[in-house]
Amino acid sequence: MIELYTAATPNGHKVSIVLEELGLPYNVHAIDLMQGQQKKPEYLKLNPNGRIPTIVDTDNGDFTVFESGAILIYLAEKTGKLLPQDAKGRSRALQWLMFQMGGVGPMMGQANVFFRYFPEKIQPAIDRYQNECRRLFEVLDRHLGESEWLADEYSIADIATWPWVRTYKWSGVKIDGLVNLKRWLDAMYARPACVKGIEVPVKLPSLDEETDATRAFVKGAQTMLQK
Amino acid sequence: MIELYTAATPNGHKVSIVLEELGLPYNVHAIDLMQGQQKKPEYLKLNPNGRIPTIVDTDNGDFTVFESGAILIYLAEKTGKLLPQDAKGRSRALQWLMFQMGGVGPMMGQANVFFRYFPEKIQPAIDRYQNECRRLFEVLDRHLGESEWLADEYSIADIATWPWVRTYKWSGVKIDGLVNLKRWLDAMYARPACVKGIEVPVKLPSLDEETDATRAFVKGAQTMLQK
Repeated sequence: MIELYTAATPNGHKVSIVLEELGLPYNVHAIDLMQGQQKKPEYLKLNPNGRIPTIVDTDNGDFTVFESGAILIYLAEKTGKLLPQDAKGRSRALQWLMFQMGGVGPMMGQANVFFRYFPEKIQPAIDRYQNECRRLFEVLDRHLGESEWLADEYSIADIATWPWVRTYKWSGVKIDGLVNLKRWLDAMYARPACVKGIEVPVKLPSLDEETDATRAFVKGAQTMLQK
Repeated sequence: MIELYTAATPNGHKVSIVLEELGLPYNVHAIDLMQGQQKKPEYLKLNPNGRIPTIVDTDNGDFTVFESGAILIYLAEKTGKLLPQDAKGRSRALQWLMFQMGGVGPMMGQANVFFRYFPEKIQPAIDRYQNECRRLFEVLDRHLGESEWLADEYSIADIATWPWVRTYKWSGVKIDGLVNLKRWLDAMYARPACVKGIEVPVKLPSLDEETDATRAFVKGAQTMLQK
């Protein structure tokens, strides 16, 4: 059994989608980020960085894995799925996984911080990150114009990237004109495992419109940022 | 032969250090970032993201790899070195590699941008990234208090992390009190391959003091940021 410690964020969703795609049984432990559960000593024993997600594989001596990208590789290798078997295809999937881990994820994260949560409105910082996200989206769009999926076949690279890119409106980044990216976003939405994965640990209200729920979410995130 | 497209940055140095550690023959192609060589059409064919480093393995059908983290995995797997062979040890190395790719690298990068290159001095942004880097350094320090290297043995996780952390002064981040991190920094400096790797493609003047060379470097980086 996989014990999954997670929250409703793109990095958490990567892992729940992979678990759904693989059909692996898992128990969800929702970590309350607003309450700072991820910084409690008992959780830091599992994840020294104090972040989500983390998994514990009880079928493998309670082996613990942190960092979403490493969890994806671990689960793909455990099952022999979602990562091409040949060395070149495998490397191509890892290249796009790293592009997400080092680029799309951190830059969309910073766009969200300055566009949504930061106590001050600092327009040059907002612009910097939204422009960088758009540039990264254009890289993805060009690649997806030549390839159905990010690697040679549907893989953990797509699963790592989609939970971030699909929240582009929340980051204030436009996808106008990026027809290949849009095609791929929709193809991911058509997969039941993707739709199910983004409802773990709870189904969030849509962040695309301003509602009481989104205002509460932003207020919580702002509070967290100031801790 | 490995063809290495690189520049004197931490991400470039990761790859030159690994090549030095492995004793693999390689040709260096210095990419002039200030001149925008990384955005030229011929280079974008190798690296769709328009960044360094990139490798082409002429002994493997000119196989091309971009993203420093993916290059490290490729070279480790090609040679069977610098990545533990057992599944758990291997995963532990990949976890710390991902911690660098998603955390230490992007956050030190942002600290450098706002502390050194940004056209305006935005203190809240400088503080945000310097504080986050210090937090990440403390995570590393606690881990290195229990472990000689980041994974079970010296690995690509150490090699990915060191070229970033060693430039802490440039990022304006202090390592005071982080005795385990300091011990590990020094252990890496004691390895000839590390010292040689950070002189590829050219030996940079020390960035620790303000000199004509560092002022020219900052001016170039500022110009690049505004393109």
